[in-house]
Amino acid sequence: MNDTRLAPVLDRIDAELPAALDRLMELLRIQSISTDPAFKAECDKAAEWLASDLASIGFNAAKRATPGHPMVVGHGEGTGPHVLFYGHYDVQPVDPLSEWNTAPFEPVLQDTPEHGQVIRGRGTSDDKGQLMTFVEACRAWKAVHGSLPARISFFFEGEEESGSPSLIPFMKENAEELKADIALICDTGMVAPGVPSIASQLRGMLKDEFTIVGPRIDLHSGHYGGPGLNPLKEISRIVASFHDKTGRVAVEGFYEGVHEISDEMKRQWENCGFDEKTYLESVGYTRPHGETGYSTLEQQWARPTLEVNGLWGGYNGAGSKTVIPSKAHCKITCRLVGDMDPNALRKKVRAHVAAQLSPDAKVVWDSDLEGSPAAVMNTERPEFEAARGALTDEWNREAVLIGMGGSIPIAGFFKDVLGMDAMLIGFANEDDAIHSPNEKYNVESFHKGIRSWARILAALSE
Amino acid sequence: MNDTRLAPVLDRIDAELPAALDRLMELLRIQSISTDPAFKAECDKAAEWLASDLASIGFNAAKRATPGHPMVVGHGEGTGPHVLFYGHYDVQPVDPLSEWNTAPFEPVLQDTPEHGQVIRGRGTSDDKGQLMTFVEACRAWKAVHGSLPARISFFFEGEEESGSPSLIPFMKENAEELKADIALICDTGMVAPGVPSIASQLRGMLKDEFTIVGPRIDLHSGHYGGPGLNPLKEISRIVASFHDKTGRVAVEGFYEGVHEISDEMKRQWENCGFDEKTYLESVGYTRPHGETGYSTLEQQWARPTLEVNGLWGGYNGAGSKTVIPSKAHCKITCRLVGDMDPNALRKKVRAHVAAQLSPDAKVVWDSDLEGSPAAVMNTERPEFEAARGALTDEWNREAVLIGMGGSIPIAGFFKDVLGMDAMLIGFANEDDAIHSPNEKYNVESFHKGIRSWARILAALSE
Repeated sequence: MNDTRLAPVLDRIDAELPAALDRLMELLRIQSISTDPAFKAECDKAAEWLASDLASIGFNAAKRATPGHPMVVGHGEGTGPHVLFYGHYDVQPVDPLSEWNTAPFEPVLQDTPEHGQVIRGRGTSDDKGQLMTFVEACRAWKAVHGSLPARISFFFEGEEESGSPSLIPFMKENAEELKADIALICDTGMVAPGVPSIASQLRGMLKDEFTIVGPRIDLHSGHYGGPGLNPLKEISRIVASFHDKTGRVAVEGFYEGVHEISDEMKRQWENCGFDEKTYLESVGYTRPHGETGYSTLEQQWARPTLEVNGLWGGYNGAGSKTVIPSKAHCKITCRLVGDMDPNALRKKVRAHVAAQLSPDAKVVWDSDLEGSPAAVMNTERPEFEAARGALTDEWNREAVLIGMGGSIPIAGFFKDVLGMDAMLIGFANEDDAIHSPNEKYNVESFHKGIRSWARILAALSE
Repeated sequence: MNDTRLAPVLDRIDAELPAALDRLMELLRIQSISTDPAFKAECDKAAEWLASDLASIGFNAAKRATPGHPMVVGHGEGTGPHVLFYGHYDVQPVDPLSEWNTAPFEPVLQDTPEHGQVIRGRGTSDDKGQLMTFVEACRAWKAVHGSLPARISFFFEGEEESGSPSLIPFMKENAEELKADIALICDTGMVAPGVPSIASQLRGMLKDEFTIVGPRIDLHSGHYGGPGLNPLKEISRIVASFHDKTGRVAVEGFYEGVHEISDEMKRQWENCGFDEKTYLESVGYTRPHGETGYSTLEQQWARPTLEVNGLWGGYNGAGSKTVIPSKAHCKITCRLVGDMDPNALRKKVRAHVAAQLSPDAKVVWDSDLEGSPAAVMNTERPEFEAARGALTDEWNREAVLIGMGGSIPIAGFFKDVLGMDAMLIGFANEDDAIHSPNEKYNVESFHKGIRSWARILAALSE
């Protein structure tokens, strides 16, 4: 890359870093917890702050009402390719407050031995610090050149941490306004510290919940122990039947639509800088526990799962209770890859459970819940190659296409509702403690994140 | 039996029934819930009432302090065989109160289509109504003959529903005073309505609890689903491994000390009036679910069990949480028969669990909990034959020796601490709803129960 427009923008970003951090601190002080109605006014205030900040850079930006927390939409006046940048200004609750070493909404800069300077506070990494990297990149371009290198629109949401109830209706109502050439999303992380990463595939998700009903009422385990069917034993047998001894899911037809990843992708993942040892040891594992024959990264990014997230029944208080409970409960989630169809999968899982049932046992399923297929980004688009080059230049490390074990539905929504591809680039680190006490964002992520976006905008508009 | 002393006593019991019911009602109105400290004074009041009632019949009776609720001990002046009668005056809590159709501590007489007149209220069957059958039998004997037909002592406990913490220390401290030729216990039921029953074998009990620890902290099931060891799957596999496909416990050495019951006992049980169909269908079963090859009664009375009473881990609130929890928990109880040794059994169960563990999974056991072996009554004693004859005369139905699936430790304590055999005779019915809302005791059980004890006392003193 040899874009003479870029150097002064990067210089400006470096010089402006203290001011950019001050602006981020202002946004971080707003307690925009979206799940808790007590913070409704704070959410509104964060939206107001963002609309006003975008306006100060010359965007035609406004807070937009929804039945829940407001969206913020802003449009720039540039020409060239049209990109829509997405981020969310709401944050997770802060409890347990006692485990924070600083006040969650009084962000501070701290020097650390491992990461250099970090910004500590709720929302630093998820997602206020990340979304401001893009805003600051625009601000620097505008300040240096008087205009932006592309046609840029912003779309900020305030309900990402509370299920995004207003998102799809709002996107549908404002489809023409929001549609661009591509969506840029800054809400993901890097596969390893210092390794610029573009998320090219995200697993989908299927949620379900079932109850096993045995006897009509709770029974005394003395009077009925022996002849009595125990739903806790029944549900354990069913859960145990979900996997075979190799860790493969034993539900018939479960792997329909799953594709083996290409050798090229395998090679990239093997060299992406992922630190398997740290990933496993940091949580107490000496080895991966998924399907035999697949690497840890493949198990996490490229293989589907059937996971149990909750299991309960009977007595769980202090001491003992001699009960055979009437009911036992199980919450499951499946992670989907490739072309797995969530609705078809739900039927297969339910059929598997039905086939395991003992006589006199019944299963009751929760009313149907949403499922979303896996999302595979369209990495053939030229924007991906442009972004890889820009990121490689900034980080002095080849940018990699990574998978993600989690599910970020927004990319799928852009595709389904607006017919628009998305590119997910983020600068968070695994140890940022998002959703947890003492959340932080490395100043390096913030600073080089802003510079990365400046470079990407240059590359996209070449 | 042809005891001229008996007829006037039975006549007196019939004539006195309304007064006896009034006395029982007084005792039932005392809210002697032993687990709840708020009812401490009520427990004391119930003990006081009993001591005073025994004194009114001529017993040298007194409330006796313990670190918990008081005992009541009383001694009569009769001669002949010395019997110690045991009962408990404390009752279970009443929640859920909303499911009661009458106030639990305002006992009432109700006419019912199935059972004739019943006494409705907390403690009617467990155990105030039952213990008063013996007290009233004594009262009638004393009123008619001026003296009792045997040397009778009373021993009432007020902590039976809360783990009997004071029982063994009190028995040890007062061993000489409490020791008699035999203990009589009225806290059991009849195998079928109208079938007088003597409990000749009770299963023992072993309690234990374990936690499976997987990852060091709760994990995100997107980021770790696949490579992550899930303690919920682990504990399900372990629980499922406790039994084989025939319902037999698969723990190595579990059946050591278990004896097959004799053909004579089998024959008695087959003809004891147990209504298998009602027993199973009343709780929603179409068949017994225990070990293949054993009848429902054998499964309940003569075979050991390993039962899961509680199982929990992960998220159990509304909606979904994408978590792989760090821990999963399980509470178990085993019922013991024959010569099974609770301490040896605990080791076997723990070894079984240890052998199932995946790498990286750990098991943590609760600190050792009490276990009690099975109790087999000494039915060769002449008192059993005498009681069978008396019960057969009263109920016009051959009295039967039954087993019990539950565990009543008091019989074992009398043997272990005082070296004294016990005989358990009770008049409760399966549908008395003990420990549940709307507890009742059939007036027939109360009336014929009193008459039964009057006859038994006559038979014992012949």
